[in-house]
Amino acid sequence: MSAAAQPVASDALWESGWSVAGGQITGSAIRELLKLTEQPEFISFAGGLPAPECFPAEEIGLASERVLAAGAARALQYGPTEGYPPLREFLAGLLAARGLALDASQVLVTSGSQQGLDLLGKLLIDIGSTVLVEEPTYVGALQAFRPYQPRFAGVPLDEHGLLPAALETVLAELAAIGRRPAFLSTVATFQNPTGVTLSATRREAVLDIAVRHGLRIVEDDPYGELRYSGEALPPLAALDIARHGEPRHVVYLSTFSKLLAPGLRVGWAAGPAALLQRMALAKQGLDLHTGSLAQAIAFESCRDGLLERQIPRIRRIYGERRDAMLQALELSMPPGVRWTRPEGGMFLWLTLPEGSDASALLARAVEQKVAFVPGPAFFANGGGTNTLRLNFSYAPPARIVEGVERLAQVIGQR
Amino acid sequence: MSAAAQPVASDALWESGWSVAGGQITGSAIRELLKLTEQPEFISFAGGLPAPECFPAEEIGLASERVLAAGAARALQYGPTEGYPPLREFLAGLLAARGLALDASQVLVTSGSQQGLDLLGKLLIDIGSTVLVEEPTYVGALQAFRPYQPRFAGVPLDEHGLLPAALETVLAELAAIGRRPAFLSTVATFQNPTGVTLSATRREAVLDIAVRHGLRIVEDDPYGELRYSGEALPPLAALDIARHGEPRHVVYLSTFSKLLAPGLRVGWAAGPAALLQRMALAKQGLDLHTGSLAQAIAFESCRDGLLERQIPRIRRIYGERRDAMLQALELSMPPGVRWTRPEGGMFLWLTLPEGSDASALLARAVEQKVAFVPGPAFFANGGGTNTLRLNFSYAPPARIVEGVERLAQVIGQR
Repeated sequence: MSAAAQPVASDALWESGWSVAGGQITGSAIRELLKLTEQPEFISFAGGLPAPECFPAEEIGLASERVLAAGAARALQYGPTEGYPPLREFLAGLLAARGLALDASQVLVTSGSQQGLDLLGKLLIDIGSTVLVEEPTYVGALQAFRPYQPRFAGVPLDEHGLLPAALETVLAELAAIGRRPAFLSTVATFQNPTGVTLSATRREAVLDIAVRHGLRIVEDDPYGELRYSGEALPPLAALDIARHGEPRHVVYLSTFSKLLAPGLRVGWAAGPAALLQRMALAKQGLDLHTGSLAQAIAFESCRDGLLERQIPRIRRIYGERRDAMLQALELSMPPGVRWTRPEGGMFLWLTLPEGSDASALLARAVEQKVAFVPGPAFFANGGGTNTLRLNFSYAPPARIVEGVERLAQVIGQR
Repeated sequence: MSAAAQPVASDALWESGWSVAGGQITGSAIRELLKLTEQPEFISFAGGLPAPECFPAEEIGLASERVLAAGAARALQYGPTEGYPPLREFLAGLLAARGLALDASQVLVTSGSQQGLDLLGKLLIDIGSTVLVEEPTYVGALQAFRPYQPRFAGVPLDEHGLLPAALETVLAELAAIGRRPAFLSTVATFQNPTGVTLSATRREAVLDIAVRHGLRIVEDDPYGELRYSGEALPPLAALDIARHGEPRHVVYLSTFSKLLAPGLRVGWAAGPAALLQRMALAKQGLDLHTGSLAQAIAFESCRDGLLERQIPRIRRIYGERRDAMLQALELSMPPGVRWTRPEGGMFLWLTLPEGSDASALLARAVEQKVAFVPGPAFFANGGGTNTLRLNFSYAPPARIVEGVERLAQVIGQR
């Protein structure tokens, strides 16, 4: 009673007293950079923005008109947590075309694939659980998982994706101390941040390992359709279903953000029914459901084949930009700088000479009005000091060339 | 190494191995009922759905056209996590009209106010933290907080809202064992599920207690504008700001779901800047940001005064429905049944005679094609067996009368 009777200073009630997770949540380099580089004179390779000239604004406008003229009572109302039923049906068809034989009940609409990561973190991670991540990995996955307080174990990758032998070693080490990881998180195709793609052989090897170790895999596939060269590869989830006749090891996340528009915030999760049901229950506590209007617009936009027109267009535009960036790097980068040569996606990965510091470089690059994301943001446990990520989807080719030249100059001045 | 070499049965990988939180996530009565009562012959008092005839579909359609004609590049792109800047400005003005003198930097756009609850749970609750909730409380708040594994301490309420003396007692008991709660969660105005409103005197008393105990308060206010009788009361958050010249104790959540349309999934949090900044950082990991298109449409719909036209219209329609329900209850309920008489909102609360079981009653009500939510769903720690929630915003008056008669018959048949 006496403690309660003491007056409590109330002007700092929201500056401490965070949960352990809340106390650890801090800003990201990407976040600050996105703000900084909104100024038009900047050439930003930092963001992960699709090119707005690829947005099918007219089609989305017409779809929105149709939805609001004919189905407003439904599109403006609360909807089922699992998603707008016609959209789930459509997504089942889209997944079938990607090699995932699933029905609509195995699809959950999410608020971008980012929400799929948060949901899986919530359902699968306890404090101290081990989560396997690529090294480097998508920074948004780290942000989604960190509040659940896992330990991250990194699996290194090279130009053919994550190294199966390294994965096996990490799993064996964990098994030796009686542990099993919560899951492996991977962007197998046109990885963020490196742009590399897991080879066909390694896909099978990773699934062999998954079977041997009872490993759960979270495959985030926002970029898979954005291939500019080389041969298409089935998602890990498709190979998993092909092996077992049903999804066993892999839950698959994807999104309309790179195919239609990120502003819709419509993504999806697909996989084992038991998992999907529990994800839907958890999602109810998060936001009840993803926007009905956005889902109805996405469905109405796509039902007449918009994606079949969009995808070749995006491939052409981004493919030119990738080529422009690769060529500019070739022409202007000083010796000792290496980079990946992605067959698709939105990013490539630059490695500076040993001993370089990309974060220090950024400060000087910003003075020259060019921006990128320094590599350390993508490493769960430190590292990557001499690496950085470049986006090639946003700026037009001429700006890409100009930006790479600025960047090369800054690097050369070391 | 030997453990790793053992084959692991992989056909049940997603049926166990949940996190502690994930293992506890289960369905809710509301959820199952909403599915059941989608059939048209049902008269459902179960959901919390706004009446679709109140949706400003035409205005939203025109707003959508304007947004996509003039601002598609922005409305379809990724946006700032804090929200679409013109909408944040608009919301600051709306909050000022509700008595909350805040600027746009103290507003965070969320994916419905439900996401505000999840974010606050993430930032403020550790395993075993005490969260104070009204008894009964909004079931969505319980769903949002439960995955963070708090203990709930209930604060009872009567027809004038939560009991300040009971709040003081709970806080004193906690203080005596050296604990302070993470926060108090309250719907002070037209509470869900009971429809009761915290009186003016009690609002001041609750804030006095907050000052004395250094108590943080989460005020969820989705219904405040929906008043059909009685005098308007300022939100707790407004009184907090009036006392201290800035938000000290109260973070305020609200939404467009009941004023425009829930299908937009646009809500907001407002309060202390330090908290709002951290909520924005946490939100990045959840869904990057709330849909840009939905935010732009909400802003474009409202900028010319739509809410000023909407609110009186909704008040008139829902006010008639509340009156129809109260009158029908008066006319048809058997003796011994009591109910609240809300001055606004969407729900009222029925108490059956001692010893009755509302869940058992529901099974029989469903046979008569009438539905409600049994009270126990709204109690964090059990109780409420003989209580139930009725929604009066969705069904037209004649259907309400018919539904109450069906319900009265079922209750009378006990």
